[in-house]
Amino acid sequence: MGSIEAQRTITGWAATDPTGILAPYTYTLRNTGPEDVYVKVICCGICHTDLHQIKNDLGMSNYPMVPGHEVVGEVVEVGSDVSKFRAGDIVGVGAIVGCCRNCHPCKRDIEQYCNKKIWSYNDVYTDGKPTQGGFASSMVVDQKFVVKIPVGMDPEQAAPLLCAGVTVYSPLSHFGLKQSGLRGGILGLGGVGHMGVKIAKAMGHHVTVISSSDKKREEALDHLGADEYLVSSDATKMQEKADTLDYIIDTVPVFHPLEPYLSLLKLDGKLILMGVINTPLQFLTPVVMLGRKTITGSFVGSITEIEEMLEFCKEKGLTSMIEVIKMDYVNKAIERLEKNDVRYRFVVDVAGSKLDQ
Amino acid sequence: MGSIEAQRTITGWAATDPTGILAPYTYTLRNTGPEDVYVKVICCGICHTDLHQIKNDLGMSNYPMVPGHEVVGEVVEVGSDVSKFRAGDIVGVGAIVGCCRNCHPCKRDIEQYCNKKIWSYNDVYTDGKPTQGGFASSMVVDQKFVVKIPVGMDPEQAAPLLCAGVTVYSPLSHFGLKQSGLRGGILGLGGVGHMGVKIAKAMGHHVTVISSSDKKREEALDHLGADEYLVSSDATKMQEKADTLDYIIDTVPVFHPLEPYLSLLKLDGKLILMGVINTPLQFLTPVVMLGRKTITGSFVGSITEIEEMLEFCKEKGLTSMIEVIKMDYVNKAIERLEKNDVRYRFVVDVAGSKLDQ
Repeated sequence: MGSIEAQRTITGWAATDPTGILAPYTYTLRNTGPEDVYVKVICCGICHTDLHQIKNDLGMSNYPMVPGHEVVGEVVEVGSDVSKFRAGDIVGVGAIVGCCRNCHPCKRDIEQYCNKKIWSYNDVYTDGKPTQGGFASSMVVDQKFVVKIPVGMDPEQAAPLLCAGVTVYSPLSHFGLKQSGLRGGILGLGGVGHMGVKIAKAMGHHVTVISSSDKKREEALDHLGADEYLVSSDATKMQEKADTLDYIIDTVPVFHPLEPYLSLLKLDGKLILMGVINTPLQFLTPVVMLGRKTITGSFVGSITEIEEMLEFCKEKGLTSMIEVIKMDYVNKAIERLEKNDVRYRFVVDVAGSKLDQ
Repeated sequence: MGSIEAQRTITGWAATDPTGILAPYTYTLRNTGPEDVYVKVICCGICHTDLHQIKNDLGMSNYPMVPGHEVVGEVVEVGSDVSKFRAGDIVGVGAIVGCCRNCHPCKRDIEQYCNKKIWSYNDVYTDGKPTQGGFASSMVVDQKFVVKIPVGMDPEQAAPLLCAGVTVYSPLSHFGLKQSGLRGGILGLGGVGHMGVKIAKAMGHHVTVISSSDKKREEALDHLGADEYLVSSDATKMQEKADTLDYIIDTVPVFHPLEPYLSLLKLDGKLILMGVINTPLQFLTPVVMLGRKTITGSFVGSITEIEEMLEFCKEKGLTSMIEVIKMDYVNKAIERLEKNDVRYRFVVDVAGSKLDQ
């Protein structure tokens, strides 16, 4: 199985400046420590956050940067203290690969809210080296941040669940919105939105897709299985649907008024924000108070929630809608993603790609 | 005890136009129907909402209008189907005197969220007559909307609990914030804010009063019993207190930025809005998402919650800070209330006032 002491030189695809163009990049991985799992990457989803990171949209990017945080791979080697995994296991790695383990969120197993969490890439690991993501032949990851992919689940199908999937699953679970019979709205039909429809339907909810235009109606109803489609500019229909939803998952990543959507919520309804938006959003207090409505949001999900969500998806036979590409198409894919020209998630077939050309 | 059939002519103090000046006004009360309680008013608190209503600030005022919705009185007569009350009982009436009894909120006993609720005044009752409030010698109220004032509780002390008190108690109860040991913030120290400090302290919380200036420090710490006082313009102190509060009750009735207060909240912390503000409030989504924080609000409380809150206050020996006045001072009191010149609630000694002069 190879020596635990071997520090490997590997190839990933990295951005080297804010143009965000990815190209082959060679770097070393740390030795497989006692708690580590050495994973050969099979495939990796492309998330909108990757796009922001490689282009330094948030002003916090360090280069060279190998993105990718929806990683599915095969365990090749495990450290001496790893009992949860063994060689041959198919596993997943999400957005986080480290946390302090001592703070209040860490002790509650919601390490995604740890102030000292370590991101899968564009961060610095405990050994002082930069973290690099899943657009690479392999990764070394602490076992705490590795999850088993359920037997029988296709790796390409599983990849988008590790970020987009749990990003939707976590708030529905946390805010008590998992039981069947609820009426949910999904605002925005991108990578996260499409997982929202799939997961909410699998929970037995009546799902309304809310969109700014009629363009995605057929897609939402016929292909994703939504129950209703509501165009937000249709004031009459919006009025008709006032006070009907238990929650709305709002995936819109740019400024938008909240009133029209708050009005769709029932008493005690929840508007759950998923979009990191740098312009302030606005609302009128009476709209919230008179229906005891909640504006909230959450951020990815914990390892425990990822495991729970993967089991849930397996049990429900839930599949994501993906477009599988090779690594040599990745720059084109990112261009298309920027224009929302993807149904609904690109997944890079890393193992099937030549990485060093 | 008087005849159930008697339609009584009584005197209240009414506003007759948007100047909001109150003066004696004579009108009739409906007969005491089978479900009704005829109450002789002892005293009545003055709430900020009364001020908005008499001056038509919300554009929905009808005149003549007898305000007052923190009413404590003595039962004089009960209808044939009333078993909960009898003559001599000291009772309270709050902001609501009717609801549809069939909708989802009504069936859950949170009738304050019924779309057909009937306000204690400035509304139309089921008989087609205007409702009139507690600045009057008596009221006829459906028993469902009457609560018993616990034996031994002073009527003047009880009055502010019926609106200001339950307005704070209801969200703390509903959002799971009643247990001792929590750290709460009270933003704004008016009528509702002062009840917030009192009730939160009685729940065993560590209470921080947050204010825009240092003016109320002594008041908050020495007289109301708050544990800390934080001036919102003191950036260093605000930074020091980041991530420390489980909730904030935000009673500020005008536009204010939310970020500074959201930052004070811990993971899963709740910002509970109490102020009806016509200018939109603003927030940045990452501040909410990265701490899974909640912006919410609620609106007065149900009859069940009022009863529960009154028992809670009696048990804890909670007293409100009030300034008792006679009716002939009411216009001056409203002027002072407009300038927040009151510690912290005016209560009109109605039974001790000459109403017809």
